[in-house]
Amino acid sequence: MLETQTDPAEALEHLEAAISAADGILAWKILDDLGPEDQRWTWARLDEEERDRLVHLLDREDLADLVQHLAEVQAVELLEDLPPEEAADIVEDLPDEIGGHLLREMDDEESSAIIDHIEDAEEQEELRERIEYDWDSAGGMMSEALLAFQAHSLVGEVLDDLSANAEDYADHDVQYAYVVDAEERLQGVLRLRDLVLTPRNSVLSTIMIRSPHSVGVQTTLRELADVFEDYNFIGLPVVDGEGHLKGVVLREAVQEAVADSSASDYLRSRGIVGGEELRSMPLAGRCLRRLSWLAPNIILNLCAASVIAANEATLEAVIALAVFLPIVSDMSGCSGNQAVAVSIRELTLGTVRPRDYLLVFFKEASVGLINGVVLGLLLGAVAALWKGAWILGLVVGGALALNTILSVLIGGLVPLMLKRFKVDPALASGPILTTCTDLCGFFLVLSIAKVFIDRLAGL
Amino acid sequence: MLETQTDPAEALEHLEAAISAADGILAWKILDDLGPEDQRWTWARLDEEERDRLVHLLDREDLADLVQHLAEVQAVELLEDLPPEEAADIVEDLPDEIGGHLLREMDDEESSAIIDHIEDAEEQEELRERIEYDWDSAGGMMSEALLAFQAHSLVGEVLDDLSANAEDYADHDVQYAYVVDAEERLQGVLRLRDLVLTPRNSVLSTIMIRSPHSVGVQTTLRELADVFEDYNFIGLPVVDGEGHLKGVVLREAVQEAVADSSASDYLRSRGIVGGEELRSMPLAGRCLRRLSWLAPNIILNLCAASVIAANEATLEAVIALAVFLPIVSDMSGCSGNQAVAVSIRELTLGTVRPRDYLLVFFKEASVGLINGVVLGLLLGAVAALWKGAWILGLVVGGALALNTILSVLIGGLVPLMLKRFKVDPALASGPILTTCTDLCGFFLVLSIAKVFIDRLAGL
Repeated sequence: MLETQTDPAEALEHLEAAISAADGILAWKILDDLGPEDQRWTWARLDEEERDRLVHLLDREDLADLVQHLAEVQAVELLEDLPPEEAADIVEDLPDEIGGHLLREMDDEESSAIIDHIEDAEEQEELRERIEYDWDSAGGMMSEALLAFQAHSLVGEVLDDLSANAEDYADHDVQYAYVVDAEERLQGVLRLRDLVLTPRNSVLSTIMIRSPHSVGVQTTLRELADVFEDYNFIGLPVVDGEGHLKGVVLREAVQEAVADSSASDYLRSRGIVGGEELRSMPLAGRCLRRLSWLAPNIILNLCAASVIAANEATLEAVIALAVFLPIVSDMSGCSGNQAVAVSIRELTLGTVRPRDYLLVFFKEASVGLINGVVLGLLLGAVAALWKGAWILGLVVGGALALNTILSVLIGGLVPLMLKRFKVDPALASGPILTTCTDLCGFFLVLSIAKVFIDRLAGL
Repeated sequence: MLETQTDPAEALEHLEAAISAADGILAWKILDDLGPEDQRWTWARLDEEERDRLVHLLDREDLADLVQHLAEVQAVELLEDLPPEEAADIVEDLPDEIGGHLLREMDDEESSAIIDHIEDAEEQEELRERIEYDWDSAGGMMSEALLAFQAHSLVGEVLDDLSANAEDYADHDVQYAYVVDAEERLQGVLRLRDLVLTPRNSVLSTIMIRSPHSVGVQTTLRELADVFEDYNFIGLPVVDGEGHLKGVVLREAVQEAVADSSASDYLRSRGIVGGEELRSMPLAGRCLRRLSWLAPNIILNLCAASVIAANEATLEAVIALAVFLPIVSDMSGCSGNQAVAVSIRELTLGTVRPRDYLLVFFKEASVGLINGVVLGLLLGAVAALWKGAWILGLVVGGALALNTILSVLIGGLVPLMLKRFKVDPALASGPILTTCTDLCGFFLVLSIAKVFIDRLAGL
């Protein structure tokens, strides 16, 4: 059974007391008793000064442990606030792929300062190389904790090495060992169970599985997810352009990256540029990040609203229309956003490709037609009943029906086009959709009204 | 290296030809050469008749293979379109947890018809039990493919069983074996490598690890994700209330469920009730599902717009305000949605808890104040310059500033409250936010304008 969890609110109080008392051992005991989620929460609740003091009370192994449980932005902040030599000590204790992720999130200057302070020259080199890869490529996700042996080694030598270094290999993926040539090029793969069942004097190259599946360092997350879905591998060796074995990418690293990437898609689709914000981040950064999305939006909004300004005369004659302009704009946005969401989902699943615009067009047109008519009738009926004038219902309902068709078409197609032109659909689809549908919606309401202006005037 | 991929568009053509020629062997060869993503795409491109004919051309093992690669809704559709006895044949060939997921998505009637046709009585019982668990609980996610041995067995007996049944165990998680008592209650866990290093006549109960970590069938996805983050397990045994071993939940199943759940959150947050829609689904269902979200929204929109109707006199006197009403409504929606997204993200990460409303209030109030002032100044300046009247700028800009503060507060707090009252924050936050901020926005613009009506009149 799972151990009973400590109450995090109580733990927070005790932790704060331990920090005040400068009792690092107690502080770590309290933190270590918490699950990762409670650690994240507790950390978020500490103020800046407390965090700072806590970091200096804990030793580097404990900090490395904590860093792995914190949310990425929390961990990056923790490292950035330390002098580079201390941050380097912690990074050395992290698995390479986690260290790489955190360094990649920092300014170049800050990350190189930390890497410069790492003692092991080989690890320095590896980290420098690693942060050049995209976080969601095989090179960015791979772990260097793997077992590699020379092709000419004997089974007995390998078994002796394994038992001699059992401690070191404890956190490795030890289902497989990789076999390389003298230049570290991948030659084959060994199942560990085969090792045990082979005479000790056999040469590895005679029992390894030749030309094993492998992926290049540049392999994308999408491609990796596909391979792991297709085959039942736990991990795949990663090679560079010359076939040198660079690391192993594990199924669980790929799944974690897929989850991270959809969380970030969600945040970007809601206007959080950069794809991450926690409220523990500094105020100025949070405001700027949010404004960098809001400011362009206000300009797009002004463009759309200029249609209203250009038709003020119509509006002045039929003031009741002003009630319906925001409704048409909002509802079209809602309908269009549903289509955006389905397109982004289908692009992710692979059930739609960027070139399938004809299919999406017809599929959305039919939904738009039906939903447009239903919503148009609803809104039209309300408008007609309110002012006792069926013509107002016709204008408002007709405009909403037409604009619903337009907005589901735009919403369905924009993500495909953005994807094709390699623009981020999550971030850009919303504003493009809203601007187009607002503009068209205002235009439709006011232009149709203009046609019937004589019968509408005074409503 | 990865095999070169077949071009899916070409494969689709060949597949359609094979279906026309009723050549099941060729059809499967074409499908089998495609990666899972290409299989999903190809399947989505076939029309209903082609899919139907294809299903009858393929044999059940191939269909079971295909079903595992298709998107869940595609797979459910495939099974639902078959007579229950044929669907049952396929379900029998699926891993239990996948079969369970698909059956859970069907109507009760349809799923029981399929289960009734499953030949093995024990598997029938297991599936009936399984679909009662939530899809995202340990019971819903667990696999029944595990190794369990009696505590009184000897190491030699276990090793003989393993080698005799090596084929059957190939798709099991064979890192660990579980030890149970005569009533199938979990007693301990065995590392397979320990088995090999122990004399054959040792009794399992003497070498097993006692009181191992385990989870209950009701354990939630959140709790599971936490345990797997905290400990380096590949899988955990799942027990019922009496301690009987029911299955094993694997790290990868948990990670997959986390990814599925955030994809569904995204779709629901965009108004796709139920959390999934593919354009290959029947038109009527797609329309109804989308309308079930749009129809309540139009009513909420009407409520908000009633504020405009109630202040028509003000609007009639200052027609220029009509241009700014949709802008204030849209921009407040944008600001509020950013706060919603951050709250939902923080709730997921655990850096915020539903009770932390005071913290969220203060953190959002400061962002709202700064962003409100910036956006208010921007919009106010445009308004003032447009009509050459600073008072219009003051009214419009002031209303936007105030409403931005309100909307980030509402956006930040609503997901916390919904979570606390166990309402789905992804689905409900948007409409609540938009209604409140539209209502307040319209009210602020028109009420402030009313105060300065003498100086605004005629703009």
